[in-house]
Amino acid sequence: MAALKDVGERKLVENIRNIVRPRSADTVIGMGDDAAVVKCPGDLVVSTDVVSAERHMPSGMTYEQFGWTAAAVNFSDLASMGARPVGFLAAISAPGDMEEADLYDIVSGIDQCCEHVGTDVIGGDTKPGALSVAGTAVGSMDGLTPMTRNGARPGDLVAVTGTLGLAAAGYYSIEAGIEEADDERFALNVPLPHIDDGIRMAKSGIVTSCMDLSDGLANAARTICRQSHVGMEIEWEFLPVGENVEDICRQAGKDVKDAVLRWGGDYELMFTFRKDKVQKLYDSGLVFSIIGIVNNDSGPVLAEDGSRSEMGDGIY
Amino acid sequence: MAALKDVGERKLVENIRNIVRPRSADTVIGMGDDAAVVKCPGDLVVSTDVVSAERHMPSGMTYEQFGWTAAAVNFSDLASMGARPVGFLAAISAPGDMEEADLYDIVSGIDQCCEHVGTDVIGGDTKPGALSVAGTAVGSMDGLTPMTRNGARPGDLVAVTGTLGLAAAGYYSIEAGIEEADDERFALNVPLPHIDDGIRMAKSGIVTSCMDLSDGLANAARTICRQSHVGMEIEWEFLPVGENVEDICRQAGKDVKDAVLRWGGDYELMFTFRKDKVQKLYDSGLVFSIIGIVNNDSGPVLAEDGSRSEMGDGIY
Repeated sequence: MAALKDVGERKLVENIRNIVRPRSADTVIGMGDDAAVVKCPGDLVVSTDVVSAERHMPSGMTYEQFGWTAAAVNFSDLASMGARPVGFLAAISAPGDMEEADLYDIVSGIDQCCEHVGTDVIGGDTKPGALSVAGTAVGSMDGLTPMTRNGARPGDLVAVTGTLGLAAAGYYSIEAGIEEADDERFALNVPLPHIDDGIRMAKSGIVTSCMDLSDGLANAARTICRQSHVGMEIEWEFLPVGENVEDICRQAGKDVKDAVLRWGGDYELMFTFRKDKVQKLYDSGLVFSIIGIVNNDSGPVLAEDGSRSEMGDGIY
Repeated sequence: MAALKDVGERKLVENIRNIVRPRSADTVIGMGDDAAVVKCPGDLVVSTDVVSAERHMPSGMTYEQFGWTAAAVNFSDLASMGARPVGFLAAISAPGDMEEADLYDIVSGIDQCCEHVGTDVIGGDTKPGALSVAGTAVGSMDGLTPMTRNGARPGDLVAVTGTLGLAAAGYYSIEAGIEEADDERFALNVPLPHIDDGIRMAKSGIVTSCMDLSDGLANAARTICRQSHVGMEIEWEFLPVGENVEDICRQAGKDVKDAVLRWGGDYELMFTFRKDKVQKLYDSGLVFSIIGIVNNDSGPVLAEDGSRSEMGDGIY
């Protein structure tokens, strides 16, 4: 295998196309034309996010996992609107002295994440530069109403999917050399976009706001409060903290509240919903934890043992 | 005004949002949520392309023009499919020591190009790094059939919109210090995506292939031939060369064929069409020049004074 700068551009593009496999019936025209064309039966949802090796590739993350992550963070943005992915585009910057095989691993990781959410890589671009992927995910609402950040109303309940603190605990375990943290490191290196959860929520018709936890729970709570002009009380005891998170934090000498509230990277969905209709959510098959209630204050507070405190800022 | 590294991220995002003005009825949810939502009545068309200051910002180009160009090259890809733009997203990398005002000029240039084609900036991301814009344009086919690169058939005529060689002549005029080249420099620094032309072509129903000239006419001809499995004869005398292009090339000591055939940056559309239905194209109001004919050979040749030659490779 050669360094990227020694591979002709046409050959590079051809090799990349051989890695990326078309599989989705949505794709009308995939890679290889001026633009891609996909079926989009409903409003179009689109998000772009750059991940860079410098900021988003923790020690021990493989190139494949880096590629997966670049796709996953964008699909997570679609999930929080309730959209179904119909395509992904990747503009990759990579240094000329990078091994050809490493770039293909990134592309393969991107493609695997696309397969995971049932869609295709439909376009891209490769340029010299510091390693980063500017990803764009496109999705369809399929006739559903998108979930936004500004619809929370006093009296709504606050909930979250999955478990919290895994990504932070995974990171801490690497820093501190703690070996028994496979699940946490996997959560850090292979974030899962919750596409099906988002669609279930949007279909329920009772979700009033939703946002992913890419920048942490405290950040998501504050953003929903600000954009919805409401307050929120989050109960510490209700939070679905991952089972080994406290233990890893203690071993690593880290604050468990930082891991759960202020660290990013969990990619779960936080949402608010009309409490009188909660049965619709249970009927949808969504697995979630109720963690608090929306009120008339401004901004979120954390309640614990009868006392209330600020939730703090993101630290990731 | 401060350097970017001294501006808080929230303030930066707020300032950028104040530059970008929503105007399109297609935009359901613009900037400020996890993802943007736009109406897309028809198949979705999407393209991503990175422009970097190092490769795409010739001497004398302003930051505003750089931003315009970053949007325009992506809209040009939509134009060559026959799509109507419904949104644009920009992932901007910029060095920390860059002046805040220069970034806003880039954003303003992007926004002006979006206004020019009737759409909005609907999302983006800003990260530290060498100056580049990873742009993504999204569009709708509005029920039309997309024009691809692989439908050219022997007997079709070959045509091109607009005039050729202006961008190269503009570049040569800067290198050589030739002053009388305002139109050519404008063409170089403010490329116009031919959205209306693309839609007219797609509506005509007789265009069999189309591609923009971003990498030069020779490259477009070769690509259409390869993907359509045909040959093509281009008549040098038929090419609509810009009126001062020969003169500027002579003064600058450059080959006019390089400027017209092998230089990129003109962003005109090259296309093939069924010659028996040419009246439909005239009826559409499209302004174009017929430049050759599709045949059974493999690859394009240039005909001049009764002799035939290869068209050569791109030099941009």
